[in-house]
Amino acid sequence: MAEDFSLENLPYGSVRRKSGAPPRLCVALGSNAVELAALADRLPGVPRELVDAPNLDRLLATDASTWSSLRAALQAALADGAPHEACAPLERAIPCLPFTVGDYVDFYSSLEHATNLGRMFRPDSEPLLPNWRHLPVGYHGRSGTVVVSGTPIRRPVGQRPGAGGPTWGPSRRLDLELELAYVIGGPPNALGEPIPIEHARERIFGFLLLNDWSARDIQAWEYQPLGPFLGKSFATSLSPWVVPLAALEPSRVRSPPQHPEPLEYLRGDEPWGLDVELEVALQPGGQAPHTISRTNARELYWTPVQQLVHASSNGATVRPGDLFASGTISGPERGSQGSMIELTWNGERPLRLDGTSRTFLEDGDTITITGWSPAGDPERRIGFGAVRGTILGV
Amino acid sequence: MAEDFSLENLPYGSVRRKSGAPPRLCVALGSNAVELAALADRLPGVPRELVDAPNLDRLLATDASTWSSLRAALQAALADGAPHEACAPLERAIPCLPFTVGDYVDFYSSLEHATNLGRMFRPDSEPLLPNWRHLPVGYHGRSGTVVVSGTPIRRPVGQRPGAGGPTWGPSRRLDLELELAYVIGGPPNALGEPIPIEHARERIFGFLLLNDWSARDIQAWEYQPLGPFLGKSFATSLSPWVVPLAALEPSRVRSPPQHPEPLEYLRGDEPWGLDVELEVALQPGGQAPHTISRTNARELYWTPVQQLVHASSNGATVRPGDLFASGTISGPERGSQGSMIELTWNGERPLRLDGTSRTFLEDGDTITITGWSPAGDPERRIGFGAVRGTILGV
Repeated sequence: MAEDFSLENLPYGSVRRKSGAPPRLCVALGSNAVELAALADRLPGVPRELVDAPNLDRLLATDASTWSSLRAALQAALADGAPHEACAPLERAIPCLPFTVGDYVDFYSSLEHATNLGRMFRPDSEPLLPNWRHLPVGYHGRSGTVVVSGTPIRRPVGQRPGAGGPTWGPSRRLDLELELAYVIGGPPNALGEPIPIEHARERIFGFLLLNDWSARDIQAWEYQPLGPFLGKSFATSLSPWVVPLAALEPSRVRSPPQHPEPLEYLRGDEPWGLDVELEVALQPGGQAPHTISRTNARELYWTPVQQLVHASSNGATVRPGDLFASGTISGPERGSQGSMIELTWNGERPLRLDGTSRTFLEDGDTITITGWSPAGDPERRIGFGAVRGTILGV
Repeated sequence: MAEDFSLENLPYGSVRRKSGAPPRLCVALGSNAVELAALADRLPGVPRELVDAPNLDRLLATDASTWSSLRAALQAALADGAPHEACAPLERAIPCLPFTVGDYVDFYSSLEHATNLGRMFRPDSEPLLPNWRHLPVGYHGRSGTVVVSGTPIRRPVGQRPGAGGPTWGPSRRLDLELELAYVIGGPPNALGEPIPIEHARERIFGFLLLNDWSARDIQAWEYQPLGPFLGKSFATSLSPWVVPLAALEPSRVRSPPQHPEPLEYLRGDEPWGLDVELEVALQPGGQAPHTISRTNARELYWTPVQQLVHASSNGATVRPGDLFASGTISGPERGSQGSMIELTWNGERPLRLDGTSRTFLEDGDTITITGWSPAGDPERRIGFGAVRGTILGV
């Protein structure tokens, strides 16, 4: 199998070499995190403060032409491999959040996911609400509880619906959501000035994997009329490595046709589907992992640039560090759904694992989401690494 | 009329002395902003970096005992007035956001407001949804578009509902929402560890006025099933001065009785209603202002500590700089509603102003929200100042 982190990928992250060491901006190359500050003398024309940094924040605040120059300089400097003193083995390096998260917006852009949830929760109505095909439905999540892969996830406690009124206790319907996310960079648009679709590309720095943990019982009771709150805000896990948009150019494909045609501001000619293979593995405590879902991000109905353009269409400023997520990615085939509630059809069809089964997540379960793009050449795949989290009991 | 900013109040803010000057941490006293760095030598025991600062961020990151010590030191240092060199007249000083906004959560805590909106939007059902009396309903708003008083508000453009599908254009139902907000400080609770109600007080630094501008047409079309997004995210205005919780101790009163009794985690013995008089004035371009609403924050059903405890009850971290808002404050009497949609009953009963009328806001309208607490002594009222914004055309 080709490795995730080739010179054509060169994703950015922030890692500590060991516990207690400061976080440093790195790229992943092969099996190492390569510290950028240690390469500074080999990067002609790159301002030192961009690479001698704890994380991506300063780079995100520059612009797309700076990102291109740095990437070209890094690919040249690392063409013959990374110098030993700059390298920390990935298996020992401790990942940190790669950037400071500004606003976090979560969309609902998979037709199959929105349809599945509509069928379960509103069985007597049209599964899709009337707005769904006209705009990328989304909402703001909690940025202060976005955590890096590996952070343990404590099962949330909260109000659960009950026939005699709500009861208080640990969530009994704890779920994952498989999502693809991207982080914004570049000079912010001024308040009141929307980002036109032809400029959206310059604001997208790169992509990550995201697990939008969800407590379905808490969410079901609280979410009307203002949307999800505590059912989601306890934690959202992010993969450590940001794959630059530049590395995904060969992965861009046509997204599914949209009917009706969206309003003018959401129309563009470029292909913005992303051919990213995705897998979810569930590992019960002390047992082997089982792949429970396989899908592809190219199935998403609304594209990343449509999401960004829509989010700023009312004049909202979008800042470097803002995080946008796709919403759960589900395909049409059995086993291609990105959440337990879909895979088990609201708990009615438990997943059979070796010697055990699951409707929702149990304490000790580890969920690992992986992703990679074939990028037209299986030998040179563009890998996202993984986002992983283990459920802790209350 | 007693002035807003007495020595018993001493609210904190960040102002520029003139255009282009750097923002500096100040308190408001009488008719001046008093720069704290200029007082540093008179504040024994106060670390210099807390007061020699652009805004409240560093102070929020300390703890409640530090806030008490600084307040006592400032009251002693300013007992005989502020030194001339530390003063900038409020009428010329340029306000900045008083702190960096972390997550912004907006609640829905007024029984009258929630009931009014339920009656308008779901005329054939119970106006309150089943969860409303069991938990403070809330959602995350956009922190990157929270702006300081005085910032012009561009009328948002967006998808408006129509019989033949959505149409694109400027919002025709632009509204204000009168709210009271508070900012969090103190050491963050660890992820997975809720804040118990008896510790909530230590995390509340102080209060402000907030105008949650709302485009009702955009909101009505987009908000199902995940809640408000672009109908709110274009701008949220905040007053420049943070009134410390310590200044509001004499303003604490019993909040309305709650039936049914809330679950254990939301119960506390202390009175957490706040006796804050509130007014909204609408000034059409080139005309005199009209007071269109008068109410009081003590009418709110859910209290600030209940909101904070609920928001962290699932283990979510709450950080210094996080902003919590009450939701629209409406009283039971005619003319005590905190939004145009309620005051005009969904546009059916226009407000009569001198020679003109309004259903929703028009370009050139200025909305000013003011607030003050009698605090048991009308001569020593605790004032919040004002939050103001003028609507610009597209």
